[in-house]
Amino acid sequence: MRAVVLSIGTELVTGLRLDTHSADIARALSAVGLEVVRHETVDDRREDIASAFRRAAAEADVVVASGGLGPTLDDLTREGLADAMGVPLEENAAALAHLEAWARSHERPLSLSNRRQAMLPRGSRAIPNPVGTAVGVAARIGRARVYCMPGVPGEMALMLAEEVVPSLRGEASGRMMALRTVRTFGMAESVVGDRLGDLMAPDRRPHVGTAVRGGMIDVHIYAFGRPDDVAALLEADARSVRGRLGDAVFGEGETTMEQAVAATLADRRATVAVAESCTGGLVAAKLVSVPGISAYLVEAVVAYSDESKVRRLGVPEELLRVHGAVSEPVVRAMAEGMRRQSGADLAVADTGVAGPTGGSPAKPVGTVWFALADADGTAAAREIFTGDRALVRDRAANYALNMVRLRLALRGRS
Amino acid sequence: MRAVVLSIGTELVTGLRLDTHSADIARALSAVGLEVVRHETVDDRREDIASAFRRAAAEADVVVASGGLGPTLDDLTREGLADAMGVPLEENAAALAHLEAWARSHERPLSLSNRRQAMLPRGSRAIPNPVGTAVGVAARIGRARVYCMPGVPGEMALMLAEEVVPSLRGEASGRMMALRTVRTFGMAESVVGDRLGDLMAPDRRPHVGTAVRGGMIDVHIYAFGRPDDVAALLEADARSVRGRLGDAVFGEGETTMEQAVAATLADRRATVAVAESCTGGLVAAKLVSVPGISAYLVEAVVAYSDESKVRRLGVPEELLRVHGAVSEPVVRAMAEGMRRQSGADLAVADTGVAGPTGGSPAKPVGTVWFALADADGTAAAREIFTGDRALVRDRAANYALNMVRLRLALRGRS
Repeated sequence: MRAVVLSIGTELVTGLRLDTHSADIARALSAVGLEVVRHETVDDRREDIASAFRRAAAEADVVVASGGLGPTLDDLTREGLADAMGVPLEENAAALAHLEAWARSHERPLSLSNRRQAMLPRGSRAIPNPVGTAVGVAARIGRARVYCMPGVPGEMALMLAEEVVPSLRGEASGRMMALRTVRTFGMAESVVGDRLGDLMAPDRRPHVGTAVRGGMIDVHIYAFGRPDDVAALLEADARSVRGRLGDAVFGEGETTMEQAVAATLADRRATVAVAESCTGGLVAAKLVSVPGISAYLVEAVVAYSDESKVRRLGVPEELLRVHGAVSEPVVRAMAEGMRRQSGADLAVADTGVAGPTGGSPAKPVGTVWFALADADGTAAAREIFTGDRALVRDRAANYALNMVRLRLALRGRS
Repeated sequence: MRAVVLSIGTELVTGLRLDTHSADIARALSAVGLEVVRHETVDDRREDIASAFRRAAAEADVVVASGGLGPTLDDLTREGLADAMGVPLEENAAALAHLEAWARSHERPLSLSNRRQAMLPRGSRAIPNPVGTAVGVAARIGRARVYCMPGVPGEMALMLAEEVVPSLRGEASGRMMALRTVRTFGMAESVVGDRLGDLMAPDRRPHVGTAVRGGMIDVHIYAFGRPDDVAALLEADARSVRGRLGDAVFGEGETTMEQAVAATLADRRATVAVAESCTGGLVAAKLVSVPGISAYLVEAVVAYSDESKVRRLGVPEELLRVHGAVSEPVVRAMAEGMRRQSGADLAVADTGVAGPTGGSPAKPVGTVWFALADADGTAAAREIFTGDRALVRDRAANYALNMVRLRLALRGRS
């Protein structure tokens, strides 16, 4: 069964408000086996709404819309839907009863604006709204089933979960969209593409695709089908993807780099300390986002000034003078000083030029030095990241975390 | 001029990834006077992409698309666009030169996957991408102008701002959507609503509405019209909103709390140091996101363990033993110790229970103590934030930054 998701609202079309409903609706529909083929976002204009409904109903079995069911005059989803169905609006008894009950329980008179909300297309059904005035609408345009939900986030989520999804479950013939995501770091997208080439052929099943998320490459593996059937298919592909991408794989699904690092620290019973310069606290902030990290993270120092590098981390002033703050000797001294002072098993450090200014021909914007110190010694690496200040810092923070992950992984193997 | 915004990607249609580009593109187009009539999101399927381009070009003067320009086989925007134009793909010399230069500067061979990115529809033009491999595409379908940008966030934003928007500016009819956003922190949405009540009447022009963004209340003031005309309208409302909301207002437009703090530090020529516990580096990371902050941020310490609070900040062990880490005496000692050791003019500190575990009846999850120390003394405050770990930490970091802002603002007045 094919589905189209509609969002209705001027503030969405103009970009003043971010549409998060379409993604939520699409995930919910996919999970019960519908194939979402398209989203569309249209203005609060009656004729635009009507033509969006007509277009969607012509190509899909199910149309799920949100927005435009409020009490004000710019809420025109009911009118647009009626036009697309070719019927007039009429007062819906169930909707009116809901509105009257709502007014009574809130000890308010039922306003004229609210009364508009009881006018539904002839032949449609009111969908209950337990938490607001805007009743939903269930209708048909030709053979397509149409559901309209209010745009208010809590009301939409409740109506989707309690009314719309249950009424579609079972219709979808036991098929579902199953997904596995293999997350990687440190391998270029083109290299991932080369290694996975045959798996990514457009007509292959399962479908394998890559997506860049926060400077990392995610490999999505997904297929429609019966649950047992697709689970086995996805498992085989996930194993193959992991094998081809090796150490670049840090986790699956929604696992973040910091969660992967925290899990590895817990597994190895190792503690870590962080000395940050250009990432400015981001490495620590990512680690602290993981509940329970206090057992493994001793402390972090954001030594943003040269003076702080000397005083807090024991970096010799001479190194800063001779090599500059963004250099291999300084980053090594930062990591070693941090490890000594904190008593942690590992210390990771970074220093770099996040931009937009401060670059030079020898050290262009994006240059970051990293060091990792542990009982086996200290390793250093230099990267040149592209992107703006925020991207450079985010990538640098992930790089530092990944160094910890790889070091602990190697240790596990030796 | 009418515009349609397209987003291309299976992970968007299925809801695996939230589409934020469409809103960003729509705002940018509206700001230069285009009327955005519709967004559409389609799958990475060649025929779906082609028909979306055809549909959009039939009804709009400008079509702006993002996504599907990567190197892998599931990136099919180039193919879909060529089909909609009725032309074949061919190797584009400018695109190839860009890819070769990119490979050289990154000291990598040009992979076969990357070479695909030079194949553009015949008759189209490559749009430069200064930060990635995916060149954009400018083309025509009939009379409609079409722009395709990569889906990678930083690359899309840069190409939109530097290439697409400039080439459209001046084309539009002289009417524009003008928007002013007044950003506030620390005042409840219902209080903001009460204070702005009359301005928020639905049929009033300009339209005034509130939106919660990252725990802050933004007040949007917007109107469609001729530039001079709407600018004066918005200016009057913005002044009124600022007056009614007082010190809760920290900035306008895209100004972040950290930018507001950095600007105030620069204005007062004051330096700051940060001692973080439950925010775990987030306060520092937010400050370091502002270019040039190195002149005002001395250093930060993430004293996540009790031991680190003693060793790095000089918090007396007895205070930790008697009052616990989440307490007023400890947070005061953290701020004062940080100020003493760093030599900064101000030091701000936090310690709290970010959750999900670690709460108690006396100190429930979300309890955070703050302190601010400067030459005038030390102030402390306690808040109980709601939300999950990430929200509690983000709100706490903003609260700490806001303390610095308010202290410096008061100082400016005395």
